[in-house]
Amino acid sequence: MTQTETRAPAAPDTTTREICAQIDRLIDARSARIAAHGPHFSELWDVAVHCLQGGKLLRPRLMMGAFDTLAGTGPAAQRTSALEVAAALEILHFSFLLHDDVIDEDLVRRGEPNLIGCLVAGGAPGLAPAASPAADTTAAARRTLHWARSSGLLVGDLMLTIAHQIMARLRLPEHSRTRVLDLLEASVTETVAGEYCDVGLADGAFVPDLSLVLDMTRMKTASYTFELPLRIAAVVAESPPAVELQLGEVGRHLGVAFQLQDDLLSAFSVSAAHGKDQFSDFREGKETALIAYARMTNAWPSIERLLGAERFSDDSGRRIQRLLTECGAREFIETLVQDQIRTALQVLTRADCAIPAATSRFILGLVDSLDGRRA
Amino acid sequence: MTQTETRAPAAPDTTTREICAQIDRLIDARSARIAAHGPHFSELWDVAVHCLQGGKLLRPRLMMGAFDTLAGTGPAAQRTSALEVAAALEILHFSFLLHDDVIDEDLVRRGEPNLIGCLVAGGAPGLAPAASPAADTTAAARRTLHWARSSGLLVGDLMLTIAHQIMARLRLPEHSRTRVLDLLEASVTETVAGEYCDVGLADGAFVPDLSLVLDMTRMKTASYTFELPLRIAAVVAESPPAVELQLGEVGRHLGVAFQLQDDLLSAFSVSAAHGKDQFSDFREGKETALIAYARMTNAWPSIERLLGAERFSDDSGRRIQRLLTECGAREFIETLVQDQIRTALQVLTRADCAIPAATSRFILGLVDSLDGRRA
Repeated sequence: MTQTETRAPAAPDTTTREICAQIDRLIDARSARIAAHGPHFSELWDVAVHCLQGGKLLRPRLMMGAFDTLAGTGPAAQRTSALEVAAALEILHFSFLLHDDVIDEDLVRRGEPNLIGCLVAGGAPGLAPAASPAADTTAAARRTLHWARSSGLLVGDLMLTIAHQIMARLRLPEHSRTRVLDLLEASVTETVAGEYCDVGLADGAFVPDLSLVLDMTRMKTASYTFELPLRIAAVVAESPPAVELQLGEVGRHLGVAFQLQDDLLSAFSVSAAHGKDQFSDFREGKETALIAYARMTNAWPSIERLLGAERFSDDSGRRIQRLLTECGAREFIETLVQDQIRTALQVLTRADCAIPAATSRFILGLVDSLDGRRA
Repeated sequence: MTQTETRAPAAPDTTTREICAQIDRLIDARSARIAAHGPHFSELWDVAVHCLQGGKLLRPRLMMGAFDTLAGTGPAAQRTSALEVAAALEILHFSFLLHDDVIDEDLVRRGEPNLIGCLVAGGAPGLAPAASPAADTTAAARRTLHWARSSGLLVGDLMLTIAHQIMARLRLPEHSRTRVLDLLEASVTETVAGEYCDVGLADGAFVPDLSLVLDMTRMKTASYTFELPLRIAAVVAESPPAVELQLGEVGRHLGVAFQLQDDLLSAFSVSAAHGKDQFSDFREGKETALIAYARMTNAWPSIERLLGAERFSDDSGRRIQRLLTECGAREFIETLVQDQIRTALQVLTRADCAIPAATSRFILGLVDSLDGRRA
């Protein structure tokens, strides 16, 4: 979920504006209820809405891009439902990010303070703002951090609730509404399973073999970032079941490719242009597929010494980059990315492919932008 | 069973069994999907199901009790929906408990290890079980705790999702299903606002005045524990809107009475018979209405010195009990409890009362059992 999200292709500016307007409408509709629970809660809500609006809308734009090619000039009411689903996907994503930040104890997201960071910096009536809370271990700083993290957890619950509520109220034929709910539940379950796997690997609860790390990658991100938006677009557009299934297959492969390429970008990009601190994955000792591969090679003892070490320097980072390249981990993951993309494209050229040509073209545009994300 | 088939009213014990069976059905229906995400996640799910099954079913029993008096011998399909709602209420409650335990860093609930406590005690393939993790500050123990707490957060997300999914799929007339969703969203929002208030008070983010503490009590517990079950029972039973509103009013007052009496029990019961460690609220320095009242009296400096002190003894606990009694806090809260109960009962005897006689009798029985919980 900690990703580099480049601009989604083929999403006209108008669609982006429509998605933003839909998110604003769904959020505004809830503001009066929030305000009824007092000024403290309203202030928290305002910070949450500010953070929600900072997203790049990858999932909703992917979903609307696919929907528009599938539905063509369908009924206006159907497109309104599609926009509601798109907004719900962004709110769901925000909920996952919030809980991810609670688990990872992060204060920064996309180079900006996240919700927790905003709360820590802004303080509260009884708590002084903290300049560098991670370094400050006084009781007061610990209380501020605990309050801010608990708030992140609670806002995440609220956003998860809102995402479900939007999906539950869609004005679609009953079979489509139920199908949307099925896909949503399956995807949330898979994301939770992936996140559980991630935290288990990070804390040393599970043995970090490559196949577990690849499963984690697929479950934690590929499912709700690519598979869910594409499948749900097909359902809302009333496409035949075969289209939904095949788009799911395409989405799953592209999602894994996207996440693995994100790991490559984090590990090998020469600047922080992809939105993260350079070497942050190495500094945190993050369990990625690159690392899981390297663990099986002779380079591992050297990498292990440097990874997440207390005195981590830029030199350590550059040395890990070299070691990951020399031991074949980089090439292995690059090949995996290409394999996943190729498998996704094979679905589009299979004899039984039910995906309309316009949607296939949209997906090919996506693949080009994935390829453009190379480190 | 067909929609028109009728049934005889169920006895309370039978209802409890029906609720348990319904929870099991809804959980079992999800087990195959869970298992698809690997053995680690299945193990976590098994622990979660074990903890879910330990509840007292207060909310589902309240809801079904009200429903059965409202619906009489209505259609069997309606009662199946009611049981699904009842199960969802228990799963929602479990989700709140899980996140509450993450925020409060608790390992015990109802005198038994909670989910986090079970995970810590059971360990994981790569983590040794910890006997007294709170006292153990080694890096390994910290990792085990982090993994277990993160798991509590994630299972809470899953349970919150399942509760929404059940409610979203109810086979009710569209206006009733939408109304159920409205009530659910309002109640989750209010509970989150109450929990935010609670954590803000505990961490010193907000000034702890009595009215804020009473608001917190109402929002955090009264809403989803009493108001939501009673209102939702009326909606599923297709009762007139006036019945739903008046039951909501009754539920709100009884809910506040219940929570305040719970605070009294925690503070003054002579044993741990009410399911908590004696003096645990004092030991943790918990912000309750009792404490907020005492803060305005001369006894406060003496209480403040003892509350949550590092060397808290049973003597400290007994001394706080005496001080809370002498300063009038105990009597003030006892009076508040009686006021709330009286106001609830007044709704039942008002000229415009739309609540059926059988439902009123059920509520009077509830009030008797509330009174029986005196310390």
